[in-house]
Amino acid sequence: MSDLSRRGLFGAVGVGGAAAGALVLAAAGSASPSSKEETVSDAYPYFGVHQGGIVTPAQDRMHFAAFDTAPGLDRDALIGLLRDWTDAASRMTQGGSAGELDAMSGSYDAPPEDTGEAYDLPPSGLTITFGFGPGLFLDAAGADRFGIAARRPAALERLPHFVADNLDPNLSDGDLCIQACAHDPQVAVHAIRNLTRIAFGRAVLRWSQLGFGRTSSTSVDQATPRNLFGFKDGTMGLRAEQTDLIDAHVWVQAGADPAADWLVGGSYMVARKIKMQIETWDRAPMREQENIVGRTKREGAPLSGGVEFDQPDFTLEGRGGVPVMDVASHVAIAHPDHNDGVQMLRRGYNYVDGNDQLGRLSAGLFFIAFVTDPRTHYIPMQSRLSRNDLMMEYLQHIGSGLWAVPPGVTEGEFVGQALFA
Amino acid sequence: MSDLSRRGLFGAVGVGGAAAGALVLAAAGSASPSSKEETVSDAYPYFGVHQGGIVTPAQDRMHFAAFDTAPGLDRDALIGLLRDWTDAASRMTQGGSAGELDAMSGSYDAPPEDTGEAYDLPPSGLTITFGFGPGLFLDAAGADRFGIAARRPAALERLPHFVADNLDPNLSDGDLCIQACAHDPQVAVHAIRNLTRIAFGRAVLRWSQLGFGRTSSTSVDQATPRNLFGFKDGTMGLRAEQTDLIDAHVWVQAGADPAADWLVGGSYMVARKIKMQIETWDRAPMREQENIVGRTKREGAPLSGGVEFDQPDFTLEGRGGVPVMDVASHVAIAHPDHNDGVQMLRRGYNYVDGNDQLGRLSAGLFFIAFVTDPRTHYIPMQSRLSRNDLMMEYLQHIGSGLWAVPPGVTEGEFVGQALFA
Repeated sequence: MSDLSRRGLFGAVGVGGAAAGALVLAAAGSASPSSKEETVSDAYPYFGVHQGGIVTPAQDRMHFAAFDTAPGLDRDALIGLLRDWTDAASRMTQGGSAGELDAMSGSYDAPPEDTGEAYDLPPSGLTITFGFGPGLFLDAAGADRFGIAARRPAALERLPHFVADNLDPNLSDGDLCIQACAHDPQVAVHAIRNLTRIAFGRAVLRWSQLGFGRTSSTSVDQATPRNLFGFKDGTMGLRAEQTDLIDAHVWVQAGADPAADWLVGGSYMVARKIKMQIETWDRAPMREQENIVGRTKREGAPLSGGVEFDQPDFTLEGRGGVPVMDVASHVAIAHPDHNDGVQMLRRGYNYVDGNDQLGRLSAGLFFIAFVTDPRTHYIPMQSRLSRNDLMMEYLQHIGSGLWAVPPGVTEGEFVGQALFA
Repeated sequence: MSDLSRRGLFGAVGVGGAAAGALVLAAAGSASPSSKEETVSDAYPYFGVHQGGIVTPAQDRMHFAAFDTAPGLDRDALIGLLRDWTDAASRMTQGGSAGELDAMSGSYDAPPEDTGEAYDLPPSGLTITFGFGPGLFLDAAGADRFGIAARRPAALERLPHFVADNLDPNLSDGDLCIQACAHDPQVAVHAIRNLTRIAFGRAVLRWSQLGFGRTSSTSVDQATPRNLFGFKDGTMGLRAEQTDLIDAHVWVQAGADPAADWLVGGSYMVARKIKMQIETWDRAPMREQENIVGRTKREGAPLSGGVEFDQPDFTLEGRGGVPVMDVASHVAIAHPDHNDGVQMLRRGYNYVDGNDQLGRLSAGLFFIAFVTDPRTHYIPMQSRLSRNDLMMEYLQHIGSGLWAVPPGVTEGEFVGQALFA
């Protein structure tokens, strides 16, 4: 794949990224837990029915960024930004430059159009996923700055306060968001950096997060990874191959919200920065850890028996008639059977942000889920988890955001174009 | 390599990590810039003449941590910590557990000995490198707490203030340090987390840093990577194959410091957290960027001509007799010809720590160099760079540390044992 660098590809992709079709990835999945660092250099197509980075097999690295629109931005300028972002994303995902010229070309008297740190690197499975926050429709002062308030999806409201929340406003919300995922973190960082640069004067980076390891599988070909509690995470999450369930639980369906028909084929992205008290967790006995999760640590099997993907038996009783699966275990409270059957496409990442002044690692889970409607598919479950989940003793939700994720882009269009039609 | 997980290896490695020899890595280098994410799952041997992580081909990911010893720690307890750290490092580098039992074994009534997030992962080329800071020999009050002050290497003093320094004490120094490098960041994070846990009550994490992408090559088989200025970095750095130069410029030689004979075969590690003003840099014209660096951005060739590894010609004049290589360019000031011939083994990493309140990415270079003597091999050069380097307009050194890196460990010993003999 040595020719699939940003250098070699530039000629083939051209300005519009038209060669995408030739580079479709056959299978990026990693069936073996030992091959976590796959050498997958290919590109996912940018244009399509849905945006990339949702049902795409979860890449190992992520850079997420949320933006505030600049105070003076008007509708045309917002559209201009979305068009520029779309063009850049269509190029970068195919291994090309953020700009029309590659990182090393152009006038010597001008800054390069691309910052260059990914110049020699292949596409690395990069996906770029854009989202629109509630503030884009109505700003803090209640103004409809972009003339789109009437088309705000009813579900697109700031997430409610959950009882155990300890949110930092500087790690929450944002009018716009971008999720960049790739096999190589330098490629994901390059994408966010260049999109931030392109936004200069139009949107400003509000908060951002690097994730170093995926905590979810979105394909049956991917082994379940472990979170920083040392447990397999995302076992119950939806997989791309479950197309009927994905339609039911992830994509916004026609007629779901007549005011927001522009969102059909899109989704909602919930992001939660969840700090883990890992030093405290590490002092908990194995029995307590497994009881809190509701699964064995080694295999990820329900404590009621079987193997990882077997269904838990919440009725099974142990000594003294006590349920083997604690009713307040994480699995019990999050299980679809206890949440009106709702499921989520989870796509989170482990993070470490250094350490605090007491020498504790600032570490945790950057939770991401894509759902068809947060009112049915996230808020009720999180309300229960926040109140009752035994795991909350070791968690703190410190950041939060909800964004509507427009459907995929047709070549020549920009992301979210139907919202402005 | 699917059997080389922490799970499969445990039996083979055993408590002492004795099976290391069978897992020696033949060649981890990545000759192609497109194969940055190598699937190198093997282990480097832990025991040897030198510690790993110095001339080891630079892995792509790093987690660095600096520690302060606990106030009440005495000599025996320090030795106990170093022995526990050595034992854990010898196991983890071979794909084993931090503890004597694997992450999933042991009593259900006790916390697991290993935190578990790397349980399914292969060794991933993990190296763990320990260093001793000046404060270990004489604490801030001038006390010789561990009875080793007389054996302090003369070169092991806090680095001097350089004129452009803007150091944060919370990102500087530390009695002890650990550099964990691996192909998989989860493996590097797991190592630092578990070593931090093992130190509980004896040493506390002072500061730490994740690096997502190497900015140096330490083997001729590795392509030169790019830093966040988009330029190839570390072209002039030493490579492991230059064994005579490595002996001269990296390893501490017998007789170099009679008081510190315990350091023979070791080295000094200089770490500098260098914040890059990337938004400003990105607005600089290509001509200015290249003039500042002294190299072409595309190929990394000296501006005086040739290809990447050609020597610059500092005498070449352009129009009006102006040197083609600016005398204040980074390459000119750092070049061995202008530094009494000294060379360094560079081993730094790109980092991004989120963003500041103005929406600028908190990004830069975590500079690491291993040298035989910082008084000759770092301080004079950095003094000149800090005063004269054109690049300083776009840089800010915000963290700093110097550590003596003991030689390699023989099985049954602990790291730095000769210091306490």
